[in-house]
Amino acid sequence: MGSFLGHTLSGSLFLLLGFLWSIKHPLRFFSLKSKYAVRVEKYIDYMELLEWGGMIVFCFIGFLLEQFLPEGPHFHLYNKENHKWVLLNIWQHATMHIMFMFAGIAGVLVRCKFQVPLGMDYFLFSLALFIEGLLFYTHTDRLSSLDQYIHYIGIIPIWCGALCSLFEVWLRNNPILEQIRTSMFITQGTWMWQIGFVLYPRWGDPHWDHNDPATRMFMAMSYSWHFVGVTLFLAIMYGIVYWIFRRQKVSLGYTEMEILEFSNENTKTYTFLVDGSNDK
Amino acid sequence: MGSFLGHTLSGSLFLLLGFLWSIKHPLRFFSLKSKYAVRVEKYIDYMELLEWGGMIVFCFIGFLLEQFLPEGPHFHLYNKENHKWVLLNIWQHATMHIMFMFAGIAGVLVRCKFQVPLGMDYFLFSLALFIEGLLFYTHTDRLSSLDQYIHYIGIIPIWCGALCSLFEVWLRNNPILEQIRTSMFITQGTWMWQIGFVLYPRWGDPHWDHNDPATRMFMAMSYSWHFVGVTLFLAIMYGIVYWIFRRQKVSLGYTEMEILEFSNENTKTYTFLVDGSNDK
Amino acid sequence: MGSFLGHTLSGSLFLLLGFLWSIKHPLRFFSLKSKYAVRVEKYIDYMELLEWGGMIVFCFIGFLLEQFLPEGPHFHLYNKENHKWVLLNIWQHATMHIMFMFAGIAGVLVRCKFQVPLGMDYFLFSLALFIEGLLFYTHTDRLSSLDQYIHYIGIIPIWCGALCSLFEVWLRNNPILEQIRTSMFITQGTWMWQIGFVLYPRWGDPHWDHNDPATRMFMAMSYSWHFVGVTLFLAIMYGIVYWIFRRQKVSLGYTEMEILEFSNENTKTYTFLVDGSNDK
Amino acid sequence: MGSFLGHTLSGSLFLLLGFLWSIKHPLRFFSLKSKYAVRVEKYIDYMELLEWGGMIVFCFIGFLLEQFLPEGPHFHLYNKENHKWVLLNIWQHATMHIMFMFAGIAGVLVRCKFQVPLGMDYFLFSLALFIEGLLFYTHTDRLSSLDQYIHYIGIIPIWCGALCSLFEVWLRNNPILEQIRTSMFITQGTWMWQIGFVLYPRWGDPHWDHNDPATRMFMAMSYSWHFVGVTLFLAIMYGIVYWIFRRQKVSLGYTEMEILEFSNENTKTYTFLVDGSNDK
Repeated sequence: MGSFLGHTLSGSLFLLLGFLWSIKHPLRFFSLKSKYAVRVEKYIDYMELLEWGGMIVFCFIGFLLEQFLPEGPHFHLYNKENHKWVLLNIWQHATMHIMFMFAGIAGVLVRCKFQVPLGMDYFLFSLALFIEGLLFYTHTDRLSSLDQYIHYIGIIPIWCGALCSLFEVWLRNNPILEQIRTSMFITQGTWMWQIGFVLYPRWGDPHWDHNDPATRMFMAMSYSWHFVGVTLFLAIMYGIVYWIFRRQKVSLGYTEMEILEFSNENTKTYTFLVDGSNDK
Repeated sequence: MGSFLGHTLSGSLFLLLGFLWSIKHPLRFFSLKSKYAVRVEKYIDYMELLEWGGMIVFCFIGFLLEQFLPEGPHFHLYNKENHKWVLLNIWQHATMHIMFMFAGIAGVLVRCKFQVPLGMDYFLFSLALFIEGLLFYTHTDRLSSLDQYIHYIGIIPIWCGALCSLFEVWLRNNPILEQIRTSMFITQGTWMWQIGFVLYPRWGDPHWDHNDPATRMFMAMSYSWHFVGVTLFLAIMYGIVYWIFRRQKVSLGYTEMEILEFSNENTKTYTFLVDGSNDK
Repeated sequence: MGSFLGHTLSGSLFLLLGFLWSIKHPLRFFSLKSKYAVRVEKYIDYMELLEWGGMIVFCFIGFLLEQFLPEGPHFHLYNKENHKWVLLNIWQHATMHIMFMFAGIAGVLVRCKFQVPLGMDYFLFSLALFIEGLLFYTHTDRLSSLDQYIHYIGIIPIWCGALCSLFEVWLRNNPILEQIRTSMFITQGTWMWQIGFVLYPRWGDPHWDHNDPATRMFMAMSYSWHFVGVTLFLAIMYGIVYWIFRRQKVSLGYTEMEILEFSNENTKTYTFLVDGSNDK
Repeated sequence: MGSFLGHTLSGSLFLLLGFLWSIKHPLRFFSLKSKYAVRVEKYIDYMELLEWGGMIVFCFIGFLLEQFLPEGPHFHLYNKENHKWVLLNIWQHATMHIMFMFAGIAGVLVRCKFQVPLGMDYFLFSLALFIEGLLFYTHTDRLSSLDQYIHYIGIIPIWCGALCSLFEVWLRNNPILEQIRTSMFITQGTWMWQIGFVLYPRWGDPHWDHNDPATRMFMAMSYSWHFVGVTLFLAIMYGIVYWIFRRQKVSLGYTEMEILEFSNENTKTYTFLVDGSNDK
């Protein structure tokens, strides 16, 4: 879907998931110490099923759309008559969707207490992001060097997110990693929108001059604004959740003893990881 | 401010902050064991408010200067008539200033005991440095490949500083990281001066031949002198502070027990970091 | 052996070893807790001798084949008459074989309780992979930029495997590192097959158009399928071994106490590493 | 000294120091457990003074030679008459010498119990290697792309050594890091000899055809032989020292208790590092 709609739709999915995470992560973190710990944990369990399940559904729909839209390849990969590959751009999009679908399936299986090694979900998620970046790199509906440039710098948050998610295979539920992953994910989404607007301009004149080096300079600057905007947004979400719990008059500070227990909990997670099953 | 003054002014700000750090870090470290611990700590608290507060003030002034000097963009970003971006070079400088201003605001809020997650200051500082390097890379007032080269190698200390500062989100007050960050910061400042002199030569003949490969060789060599010079400078500052405390006849050696307590203190910091508040 | 056979043969060796590992690693891991621990451990000891010994044998045969096939260099490196190097492509292949042979020898010596520093085997294995990647990079039987591209992205799993193996010098028997190393190794093998089919097409028309950018896009997509396929394959193997042990009604979960002992065991390994001998 | 002699002389210095290390490191390691511990430690203390002191002397002589040989710059950096830089190649060599001399001075001061922060020696040594690599990169007595290539891959061991040495600022006396640093250092030395032979061929015909891509392939292969050769050499030296101590019938295995003490010793070292003094 190399169109305005294609870029903004997938960008919106990234934004949606990132937005969910920006609430979920502080929520779980702060609820642990409050009297609502058990109740919140239960809601979050449902939320996560929804999140990984939604990933399956949306990515599968995306995959079908890519294949069966009128201009899609309809599962034809190679045209034997004129010896040409059929619509590889769309096939690459479909591949990305499938990768995230696999991650979604692993995520649901892990959460449904099947005998899937814990960490498999984050590993497949990391792999899906890594492959997304790789395909971004070889994508060839490039109009110009500007087009190339904005796709290349778009790879930075994608691969940072992949790296972050890879670390989470070992360090599950680490609050810092979760926040960084979220920020990378949202930046990716907003940048998708930006790419959509630059390549398929709306509203009036096509004012993106691809041959003017100044446009490239503006993109670099705009990129930095995205980064900072997302950081501030996350800080605000974090603050809101904090204040909501704060009003409940619960002490949210962790003592040294508790942080040790927190670490032990992580060790336990690791135990199950190496065991490969999560049946307690 | 792509001029001699612009480069040396911002270089001087980096130098000033780096110089402050080169005193502050050994001072805090050695004072911890002396009888002046409490008093020094108090002074350092003021110093830090001044440091982060000064960052806000100077960066805001810098931002206004970039925008409202006669040759500035006056907040015009895009000229709808001739379809050109307006003075993006200066807009990029203004963006850098704003980034450091954000870091400064976070730094002051953290130190004023607001409910800002500890570590937010170093994270935003790291982001500001990362973005500075990114914009350095796309800056296009390049006269020649020499100009490009000296800007590119200037990115090395900037991104090393960003990495260092990112680690400090987790490892607050680590003496080694502090020294490395300081050295990178000062190198960046002295290199700014060097760039200023090369691009806008003063005093007599313009003796920088941009087409002579030898000039580039000289720049690489000069670059290494900067690095070593700054290292020696930091070692001397460290030594001076050491000798001053030494004369007070206090034992400055840390025992094994104390180093453990030092680590515990770090753990406690981490506790508050994940808590997201610094109200003890 | 720059031929279809050469690529698929060496690819098959990688696949064979990877397949062995994909069984061995989960087997050892799960058996540790079962009543078959001792018996399985003994089988695995034999398996490893076979594995490293096989590496010696196959690599030595490969080395001899490269040198003494009719079209080989027969140990002539430099032709003094026409001042040309003799068949460097084949010499590079022979070099790779020798490197893996060294790793094999170290592996056997370590396992035969000779006074070889433990970790030497993984270090030499890592070095062999690193050198393989390096030689991949300079290999010049390149037909086209496509040829170059598929060799370059083939370096990614090779060097990731090298890095993984380097970590194992310190972290011997770490289950996660073992799985990642295995996945990288198998990907390398399947990719060898892919390269073989692309460069020396079988079965009908030579349908790989090296000048069509679409072919390159397809390779990138195919590459991602390899990665995911191998990951799923490893997950399935892991699952099968798990279910076999599961049926024996043994509890496979590790308690916290046991994970600590597991770590101690690692420390002990490290002890022997720094000692440089493995005579207990 | 861009000549055969220049390359082999500096290569020989690297080899000499690497050779010394290849004996010293296993010697100290194994002696710790034998009854000769104190005596060996004393010899090693002298050896280290010699080693760092020798670095000062040789590098200072090297610096003077570079400057005052008939074809040297005699401290003239810039020729104001023809507006040309004077012999920058030789100035870069001189700079490298000075960097290592600084490291040597720090090394001697640390070992003479002056109030120099422990770790300063390895930090300056790391900086000297980093700068050496940087200057290697811009060196321009390049005859051909082959010349460039062999210098570029020569940077790999240099920067790996720098990284290793940087880690040793924190992890002093770590046996693994010491061995890796030694191997990188010796590889650098042997590669210097190789470069010398390729650029300034001796003995008969100049048989290095810089325009033949095969020569480059041979260099890559030869490079891998250097790496493996050095690894085997280090393993043999390690083995010899081990056998010498082995014959003394001392148990060389470290128990778990001892490894913990070993770690404590490291902690103590760190203590002194952060203290900045080594007066116990």
